[in-house]
Amino acid sequence: MGDTGFEAELKQRVEYIEGVLKSGLPKEEGYAKTVIEAMNYSLMAGGKRLRPMMMLETYRLFAGDSADDAVIHPFMTAMEMIHTYSLVHDDLPAMDNDEYRRGRKTTHAVYGAGMATLAGDGLLNLAYETAISGAALGAKLSEYDGETKNRYLAALKVLSTKAGIYGMVGGQCADIMAENTDITDKDELSTLLRYIDDNKTGALIESSLMIGAILGGASASQVKAIEKAGNNVGVAFQIQDDILDIVGNLEELGKPIGSDEKNQKTTYVSLYGMEAAKDKVKELSDEASDILKELGFKDSFLDKLFQYLIYRRK
Amino acid sequence: MGDTGFEAELKQRVEYIEGVLKSGLPKEEGYAKTVIEAMNYSLMAGGKRLRPMMMLETYRLFAGDSADDAVIHPFMTAMEMIHTYSLVHDDLPAMDNDEYRRGRKTTHAVYGAGMATLAGDGLLNLAYETAISGAALGAKLSEYDGETKNRYLAALKVLSTKAGIYGMVGGQCADIMAENTDITDKDELSTLLRYIDDNKTGALIESSLMIGAILGGASASQVKAIEKAGNNVGVAFQIQDDILDIVGNLEELGKPIGSDEKNQKTTYVSLYGMEAAKDKVKELSDEASDILKELGFKDSFLDKLFQYLIYRRK
Repeated sequence: MGDTGFEAELKQRVEYIEGVLKSGLPKEEGYAKTVIEAMNYSLMAGGKRLRPMMMLETYRLFAGDSADDAVIHPFMTAMEMIHTYSLVHDDLPAMDNDEYRRGRKTTHAVYGAGMATLAGDGLLNLAYETAISGAALGAKLSEYDGETKNRYLAALKVLSTKAGIYGMVGGQCADIMAENTDITDKDELSTLLRYIDDNKTGALIESSLMIGAILGGASASQVKAIEKAGNNVGVAFQIQDDILDIVGNLEELGKPIGSDEKNQKTTYVSLYGMEAAKDKVKELSDEASDILKELGFKDSFLDKLFQYLIYRRK
Repeated sequence: MGDTGFEAELKQRVEYIEGVLKSGLPKEEGYAKTVIEAMNYSLMAGGKRLRPMMMLETYRLFAGDSADDAVIHPFMTAMEMIHTYSLVHDDLPAMDNDEYRRGRKTTHAVYGAGMATLAGDGLLNLAYETAISGAALGAKLSEYDGETKNRYLAALKVLSTKAGIYGMVGGQCADIMAENTDITDKDELSTLLRYIDDNKTGALIESSLMIGAILGGASASQVKAIEKAGNNVGVAFQIQDDILDIVGNLEELGKPIGSDEKNQKTTYVSLYGMEAAKDKVKELSDEASDILKELGFKDSFLDKLFQYLIYRRK
């Protein structure tokens, strides 16, 4: 990127978010100590923290001067917990059977598959516990403000819908089934692939932006616009991931080169070739920027973050 | 029991609840079809439906003439989904590795361990999706009624807290760790065992009763009383389960006799003997009945249900 100001700001925000996450960690004590340790190990395993970061930025952009970060913190934590549980379960021997992620032992490699299954369950549940407690607190803080309560309930609804069978879980199912698909028609494969990218990767990015917008007071049409931007960023992010999977290397990504090819997975690159994939990333990225521009958020940190994530080299 | 009136009413209520569950089943279509099939297979695998039944009864008792069953339906469905996901994950090869439950193939035995893991995740998430959507709908229906919204948020909070690390998941963790515990002191073992029974079994029964009470308009002290009754019923139910595990047989329970003994599990019976276990069940049961009496619910269907469950022969 060469934009050292942006990189510095990014680092600062990751630290801020990790502070928020740490303050929400359950204490590692009592008879449930082991599962809590496994949950915290998973949650604090690093990563880009991009979903809570996008949520926070969108919230600040929409809320403007009335922004109070405490409102969005429980949802930021909940989102990262949902993302994390999905990784913990994806890594299980019964799923992808990965021993390492980001150069660090996966949860089941440290705690065993049974405890890792339970840690994922614990994280998914704690995500709702955290978001609901935040909503209940917010509702109490503004006891006579029905609008605030409606916003919290709308945010909870988006959180749950995008994480489940009509979102991420649906995408994960399609992804598993695609491994043994008998579809050979290129258009049909393309439709299936887009469904997977929309849901497995796109859904949580969409909901991160939507929740930020809803709690920041966005109108229904603004929430719809930011959802579309999130979809573009999610799909572009996934195609870039597929591109990097081929050109990347072990040091940069922390996972074996060409692991998708090893599993004979259909990707945008395998379907349409490298150049078409790069063009698609640019098209999706430009559209997302246009949406932000129309919302009045051109050149915002969120705009720069989109470009940074889409065009990342690792 | 010999109470054929009660048995008939019980059967009718199970049918009513299965109707509620069926109306909330996601459609088995699209690219997520397989995980949805696995979820529905798990949810409609039979069972006593005792958690939603207790929730419904408690709601009706507290709401009285103003009861509107539609209010409680989403939470009943959510509760059964949470209970079901916990069974699906417990049965996994990485956990208890059970091929049969209630004489029927377990979810992973039919769909494979990966899809069963995902089906459990899908059920847990759909539970929140269902309860939150119900709450959002209820909030909309009474747009200016802040009290209703607070009740919904309080019910969501109980649902999430009792299902997670401070409830069921915590109990499951302790249960796994207890298998290889080096604790030999009888009092310490007894404390650990009570923690497991309180949380693994008790927590969801407590929250079923509490949610019914909260949405039915119970006071804080009434919610606390019903929570205690739920704890008694849950622990008594578990000790009775341990008793039946020894005296039961394959036809009646649909699982191998003495499966707990095979796993060398500590139970109330193994710690204190059969007679003390039976006495404990009676003590807990009588206390639960006393609480119902004080709440004015003596001889209610809920009261009979408690006795029926605690003293069941299978």
